[in-house]
Amino acid sequence: MKLELKTDSQDLLEMLQSNKKLFDETVLEFLPRTTDTKEIQLLYNMMRDYPSRGGKGIRGTLCLLWCELFSGNKTNALVTASALELFQNWILIHDDIEDHSEMRRNLPALHKKFGVELSINAGDALHGKMWELLLTNAELLGSELTLNILQEFSRMLNETTEGQQMELSWNFGNNWDIDESDYLLMVTKKAAWYTCIAPCRMGLLLSRNTTGSKHGQAPDPSHTMNKVVDFGTNLGIAFQIVDDVLNLTADESKYGKEILGDLYEGKRTIMLIHLLRSLETTERKKVIALLAQPREAKRVDDMKLIFRLMTDNRSIDYARQVASKHSELAMELFDDITAEQSRLHPRVYDQTRYLLEYLTSRDY
Amino acid sequence: MKLELKTDSQDLLEMLQSNKKLFDETVLEFLPRTTDTKEIQLLYNMMRDYPSRGGKGIRGTLCLLWCELFSGNKTNALVTASALELFQNWILIHDDIEDHSEMRRNLPALHKKFGVELSINAGDALHGKMWELLLTNAELLGSELTLNILQEFSRMLNETTEGQQMELSWNFGNNWDIDESDYLLMVTKKAAWYTCIAPCRMGLLLSRNTTGSKHGQAPDPSHTMNKVVDFGTNLGIAFQIVDDVLNLTADESKYGKEILGDLYEGKRTIMLIHLLRSLETTERKKVIALLAQPREAKRVDDMKLIFRLMTDNRSIDYARQVASKHSELAMELFDDITAEQSRLHPRVYDQTRYLLEYLTSRDY
Repeated sequence: MKLELKTDSQDLLEMLQSNKKLFDETVLEFLPRTTDTKEIQLLYNMMRDYPSRGGKGIRGTLCLLWCELFSGNKTNALVTASALELFQNWILIHDDIEDHSEMRRNLPALHKKFGVELSINAGDALHGKMWELLLTNAELLGSELTLNILQEFSRMLNETTEGQQMELSWNFGNNWDIDESDYLLMVTKKAAWYTCIAPCRMGLLLSRNTTGSKHGQAPDPSHTMNKVVDFGTNLGIAFQIVDDVLNLTADESKYGKEILGDLYEGKRTIMLIHLLRSLETTERKKVIALLAQPREAKRVDDMKLIFRLMTDNRSIDYARQVASKHSELAMELFDDITAEQSRLHPRVYDQTRYLLEYLTSRDY
Repeated sequence: MKLELKTDSQDLLEMLQSNKKLFDETVLEFLPRTTDTKEIQLLYNMMRDYPSRGGKGIRGTLCLLWCELFSGNKTNALVTASALELFQNWILIHDDIEDHSEMRRNLPALHKKFGVELSINAGDALHGKMWELLLTNAELLGSELTLNILQEFSRMLNETTEGQQMELSWNFGNNWDIDESDYLLMVTKKAAWYTCIAPCRMGLLLSRNTTGSKHGQAPDPSHTMNKVVDFGTNLGIAFQIVDDVLNLTADESKYGKEILGDLYEGKRTIMLIHLLRSLETTERKKVIALLAQPREAKRVDDMKLIFRLMTDNRSIDYARQVASKHSELAMELFDDITAEQSRLHPRVYDQTRYLLEYLTSRDY
């Protein structure tokens, strides 16, 4: 495998695509491919399914860029970055079941192809492979740093499952009385940790794989690691709100998921929270009654009506404003954290900043 | 916590119980208990549910005993032994969903209490905690051995998910044409690895946490580690067959699961494989038709009829014979592996041997 991580390209999408290809190769080369036992062959095929569907490679790329920005060797971050993509793959298998999602990246969700039972098991098998892949770090990075990275994955998984639990509890508890702070806590745990906080923290950790301090590394790593939590929280909130807005407004062919799918799922978003608090009691009850129906009972026209109400009540504009506020704060924190690095590695700094802006302003 | 591992008690069940209490305390002290966010509190309660239901502590105890038998300090094995119990807890949450099981240790299965969606997520959260618990080994055991143990867990999870996949594929593929070698491969992967092979291998590994060779340790650890796979495979096969026989014949109040539950699940057991190959075509087709019905359509009388056919065709006797054969082979391999240790640590040796005999001859 030729290791050519494009982090200084002017073309952000090309860089993401080229990194993503490397991550996918790393993952797919690591995963088992063939066996003589046909039932186990099916498991291997299922495990390779989501990792073969592509994706943007945002999390892995963030990890590489942060490693480079703090004067690390990005080659040392490749396995960890790939494991971040693998994390997303296995957890999406389970999330798609839990959320009753039908599509994933323009194809049927795994459990729609193979059933819930086999898909839970395939998710567990892939989850195990994530830890196993991370264990291969030891040779290149040594035992200490390998264990530190495992610790980060462990924290990330705690946060992600707590966030998922919050959202699922609202759905299954038929709870529509969610305020914005509940929503922000859920999003921080469910999305910000694994999309933003953990990848950047790991990149920073991986920059320190040489003993002794090095020019351009964070002066006080644990202090910086805490700041990254703050930065990544704001970035992740902005990212998720933009993603939720896209679910209502994007071009379906580019987006790869069902448009209005979140309304069918009854997903609590900031637009919905805003809409519900903007409506009169009678109308609010009506909207809740429509959303609370089982998915298969929901009619397209009703979902479109809710979308129209969101537009009329400027709920989508409001969501975009909240996203902007968090995105601006994230950028300020980013510049604070990377003040020295922006001078030492101006190209990597620009590239990273461009990616952060893309994450909070993309249109698909 | 007072560390008093009873491995030299004459009373095997008392030893198991007392070890299990220690493992459960270790796990429950490690798992998060309270939080201000009520949705996350529910997650914590769900994560603590199976670990609070007790169990026999076989896997953890095997790990302790093997560590001691090879002159290790069993205190060093406590976290790993507890993580083995935790492994069982999280994977049973998922298995119970996949197998449509209704009961677990005399109580409703987790997904019967909280629904499938939240239970998948709680299983993932608990799975994450298993790795996190294993990371705490580093302080006591050092980085190297900690990573070796993680590698063992990773292998164990690969095997277990492959075995589960085989069994689930038969169930959902309506495949009744299973021969005994398919069954034995499935059982080796699904049961023998995590019940027998991995606990003993880990105990052996943990006995070597001091540098340099020590009197009474395995002379060639990698050679011995391979022999343990062979030993544990035979032990695990015997254990699983005994377990399957108990599912048909045990006293329900002691057993803690549904009697004849395996017939309702359509589980492929060695008794069933024997029965199907013993019957005439017409009768075989009739039995398969009864077993292939959806669980909720199955009638008690039909399941009892199949049980009677198994008795009449001596399928249960046959299963017991196969179990005996594997159990005897396991004992021979055990004596071969532990020839030196049996002289050095006769009490631990006796205790371990007694446990192995219990595993393959218990009546509940």
